[in-house]
Amino acid sequence: MSPKVITLTTDFGLVDPYVAEMKAVILKICPGAIIVDVSHGIQKFNIQMGAFILSSVTHYFPFGTINVAVVDPSVGTKRGSIIIETEQGFFIGPDNGLLVLAAEKQGIKSITQLENQNLMLSHVSNTFHGRDVFAPAAAHLSNDFPLSKFGPKITEIVRPAFTKIEITPNSLTGEILYIDDFGNLITNIQMKDITSFVDDSVEIELGSETLSHMKLSKTYAETEPNRPLALIGSHDYLEIAINQGNAAEKFSLKTGDRITLKRA
Amino acid sequence: MSPKVITLTTDFGLVDPYVAEMKAVILKICPGAIIVDVSHGIQKFNIQMGAFILSSVTHYFPFGTINVAVVDPSVGTKRGSIIIETEQGFFIGPDNGLLVLAAEKQGIKSITQLENQNLMLSHVSNTFHGRDVFAPAAAHLSNDFPLSKFGPKITEIVRPAFTKIEITPNSLTGEILYIDDFGNLITNIQMKDITSFVDDSVEIELGSETLSHMKLSKTYAETEPNRPLALIGSHDYLEIAINQGNAAEKFSLKTGDRITLKRA
Amino acid sequence: MSPKVITLTTDFGLVDPYVAEMKAVILKICPGAIIVDVSHGIQKFNIQMGAFILSSVTHYFPFGTINVAVVDPSVGTKRGSIIIETEQGFFIGPDNGLLVLAAEKQGIKSITQLENQNLMLSHVSNTFHGRDVFAPAAAHLSNDFPLSKFGPKITEIVRPAFTKIEITPNSLTGEILYIDDFGNLITNIQMKDITSFVDDSVEIELGSETLSHMKLSKTYAETEPNRPLALIGSHDYLEIAINQGNAAEKFSLKTGDRITLKRA
Repeated sequence: MSPKVITLTTDFGLVDPYVAEMKAVILKICPGAIIVDVSHGIQKFNIQMGAFILSSVTHYFPFGTINVAVVDPSVGTKRGSIIIETEQGFFIGPDNGLLVLAAEKQGIKSITQLENQNLMLSHVSNTFHGRDVFAPAAAHLSNDFPLSKFGPKITEIVRPAFTKIEITPNSLTGEILYIDDFGNLITNIQMKDITSFVDDSVEIELGSETLSHMKLSKTYAETEPNRPLALIGSHDYLEIAINQGNAAEKFSLKTGDRITLKRA
Repeated sequence: MSPKVITLTTDFGLVDPYVAEMKAVILKICPGAIIVDVSHGIQKFNIQMGAFILSSVTHYFPFGTINVAVVDPSVGTKRGSIIIETEQGFFIGPDNGLLVLAAEKQGIKSITQLENQNLMLSHVSNTFHGRDVFAPAAAHLSNDFPLSKFGPKITEIVRPAFTKIEITPNSLTGEILYIDDFGNLITNIQMKDITSFVDDSVEIELGSETLSHMKLSKTYAETEPNRPLALIGSHDYLEIAINQGNAAEKFSLKTGDRITLKRA
Repeated sequence: MSPKVITLTTDFGLVDPYVAEMKAVILKICPGAIIVDVSHGIQKFNIQMGAFILSSVTHYFPFGTINVAVVDPSVGTKRGSIIIETEQGFFIGPDNGLLVLAAEKQGIKSITQLENQNLMLSHVSNTFHGRDVFAPAAAHLSNDFPLSKFGPKITEIVRPAFTKIEITPNSLTGEILYIDDFGNLITNIQMKDITSFVDDSVEIELGSETLSHMKLSKTYAETEPNRPLALIGSHDYLEIAINQGNAAEKFSLKTGDRITLKRA
């Protein structure tokens, strides 16, 4: 049997010892675990960014992968801790909306309230459940400890608030969901949303700029260097990019800013 | 038998190839080693910060873990190279104070001067002992090569200089040991030091600010967002934090700055 | 048999999910792969920097290591994808010059055009061949899938443009190849180039500064703190450094800037 993969996604950054403490706890309980970092660069306390990153990547991992995610401004309060079982694996973390988007993409089978203190570190701090609660749970689950021992099944969980796109006969407005390290503007507009626009060129309104006569490109290198382009990116969302440049800087845009496509 | 864990803690950063060179050397000598990064973001040449990070995390790792640490401004000079054996594992690095705090937390059993050139790379540079001396030593040790072959036992090692706290009947002064990526101010004041203050509210003097009527919080979310709080953090040191904010920025404080608790 | 090592070198940064997507794809196809990050901090689109980093580190890895590198401004265009087999292992990535320097250091045995779509993800995007083409190829190769199945052998590949040094009887001019995270200025001048200068002290011209009476140091700590020094670094190139300081900042220099050594 292949060793189980455990992924980690947090807003802890890579300087502090916090991520290593989680890995240490996991390896002590499950010495053969294959631990993979997804990202520790989630913006502090930004649950939506964490949810987006998680949902972009976790479906690529092998069957049975256990995904631990910690963006947890309410650690130590009454917010719950959950394990979501999906058709492909598991998600472990705070019940604050962080896990749902990615879990739904895999098909949710059940949700367990993580309550059994015997499956946590013997001293649980009020400030670091990543190390004291979620990491041990992932390691015990990786050791094939049955899900039913972790706590009772529940049905209600917190869902993150994501903006929906607005459609009129001649326009479509979404927002910037995420700006990647290249400065590419990844929107919440999907291929299926813009099918009726694809054959034509469109106007794209971004902040105070209007890009005219835009057609969907297939590659970043299709325009001249430093020219804007629109394409369906590798996660199936509409992206605005600059060939070999940084679109977020050029257009002075940030996450949450609106973007409108109009028929020419 | 479980594979041995080797941890790495350096001031090398993650852009340069230096960390990967150490991992390459380890995997060539010990192909089954499980290598875990603790942090490569130690401030350049800051031995105390390295010592603090190491001592925060290494006791969480499995029995037998080999911890390699390199913050080494004197590389290539006559400073020694050491292996410290503890009740829980091993520490390998320069003899400059970096390893002692973490090793003492585990209980020191013996100290070996790392001298045997047959257990180093065949060409040892004057500038990169992490790759040429410490990584091969960790890998050979992980292969169960006996400690006595690495060099002679010694008893004297360099100790890092840490500031002690000052206590008067009505006040207690410590300093900021570390500022984490959340901007939380982690001091050198421990729970046991403040037992006599805990029942009362205290004044906390931080730089030019005074926080009045402070009580110890249990969680970061116990105050309103953007309000300061004091709590005993996940490493048992007093922390000053801002709920969902950055205390270091708000109070313009840095590592080494003093903090005083006074009875109201 | 030891598990095979797969290394990753990209300009993706560590915040986005892109690196984790590559790891996920690899682990799904080859669950036992040992994946090691070389660097994900290559400057965006900087093929030469990627080539330099790769060539600094890959020869330290075990025999059979598969090195995947992605700095790929032309992704989705007609640029080829290649696998270079060397005397020590493999290199997989775009045919844009990124892989050649490191591969030649190991001795090139053959070059294969990566064409077999059965060894890629079932849907290949135009924007992320790291995940869709190179990662699956590395994983299948790690599973001992024969090289001949990936595509036809080729002989012509793109070579990166590196500046050569200029030598006169009394001077030697090179350029800054790379500035590491310590601010050390790593030049393209090697020990063999300066053999005729080593016995004497030299003048070193760096931007608008001239350093007089410089001799080659053996260690960074050989001068006083904050004093400049020249030494042959751990990759056998001439470096200009500041003991416990940052030479790039002090001299306001950047990659590509010229450096001249003159007899005094």
